[in-house]
Amino acid sequence: MTENSLIDASRLTAALQRFADERDWNRYHSPRNLVLALMGEVGELAEIFQWLDDDAAARLGDDPARFTHLQEEIADVLLYLTRLAMVTGVDLDAAVRDKLAKNAIKYPAI
Amino acid sequence: MTENSLIDASRLTAALQRFADERDWNRYHSPRNLVLALMGEVGELAEIFQWLDDDAAARLGDDPARFTHLQEEIADVLLYLTRLAMVTGVDLDAAVRDKLAKNAIKYPAI
Amino acid sequence: MTENSLIDASRLTAALQRFADERDWNRYHSPRNLVLALMGEVGELAEIFQWLDDDAAARLGDDPARFTHLQEEIADVLLYLTRLAMVTGVDLDAAVRDKLAKNAIKYPAI
Amino acid sequence: MTENSLIDASRLTAALQRFADERDWNRYHSPRNLVLALMGEVGELAEIFQWLDDDAAARLGDDPARFTHLQEEIADVLLYLTRLAMVTGVDLDAAVRDKLAKNAIKYPAI
Repeated sequence: MTENSLIDASRLTAALQRFADERDWNRYHSPRNLVLALMGEVGELAEIFQWLDDDAAARLGDDPARFTHLQEEIADVLLYLTRLAMVTGVDLDAAVRDKLAKNAIKYPAI
Repeated sequence: MTENSLIDASRLTAALQRFADERDWNRYHSPRNLVLALMGEVGELAEIFQWLDDDAAARLGDDPARFTHLQEEIADVLLYLTRLAMVTGVDLDAAVRDKLAKNAIKYPAI
Repeated sequence: MTENSLIDASRLTAALQRFADERDWNRYHSPRNLVLALMGEVGELAEIFQWLDDDAAARLGDDPARFTHLQEEIADVLLYLTRLAMVTGVDLDAAVRDKLAKNAIKYPAI
Repeated sequence: MTENSLIDASRLTAALQRFADERDWNRYHSPRNLVLALMGEVGELAEIFQWLDDDAAARLGDDPARFTHLQEEIADVLLYLTRLAMVTGVDLDAAVRDKLAKNAIKYPAI
């Protein structure tokens, strides 16, 4: 992790590669497959919030079972996103640093 | 970053909080809003791949403009996901470690 | 159904309204809730195709269980979309006629 | 449209087939491509609602520009869904009738 790094996902990237290698899953992890899998997980994240109003959504952490479920779905989105970045050659840290720099120009602080 | 950390998003989380503070955006960053915003970005990611076959998708990095676009959309998904984790109190590193441990049991190595 | 109608969803719209009335579900069917529910169903649709290559996807109908599953997920997307149109006052037939007219201008026939 | 039909999308299905034929688009309309395109449109639908609270979302129809945008995105979702049904051999009317029958058993009226 360098001085300017915003995120260090190098160990997660390596762990996911090892996980795929050990299960012979690399052949399934094409970019398009991973985008579809990502959508599946985002759909499960949406389901958690679909019938909650904003107040109930803000108190979701009060219910341990729901909170664990939320944690799992957020993790799943992150796992597939990290894997998608890896198979397409995207460096997550460089990508977020560039995007935040662009956002800072697009949306100046008030 | 501790010895067992798989991802360190603490600096990104802090940078996004500062970014929201400086623009008075915290009131917009409810969990449900962030899930909808995440979907918007996943939709843009899907659009990149929608008319490509698997071969063309695998060669997407050969086209610098498309690769930059991909990088930006992956970053956007990661930014909203990190922000969603923050406002719901989910620790991304703990979440991915727990999920990988569960996955290792669910899908034994071959 | 008038002469220019492309789709007639009036009976489905009425059936869904009756279904919601009989279960006291109208209070849950806000536009944002329905968009989140729609995302959930699109995620389930994506899951059907996530590990299939294009050839396997094209032959999905050969497997009756998978085909039934596909049919159900397509139906679920349509049900939530019809319901979203209803609660937001969008006429599905007018919407698709307008959009096809715009598309015909945007993408001239070759 | 038979007595038990809930939706009649036969003319829309035929119009979309003609539209694809006239533009030589059939080769792009594989099931997986259409699912990705559908995700793109659902993402645009989500963007409309992402920074609105439930009250503002319920009043969206008061703003003609936003309402037109909503109408277009709902249409786009319906167009790709109808096309997906067509290329996978799913009969939309049969699919929604079956699903509503299953839902009526799963969620008895109160």
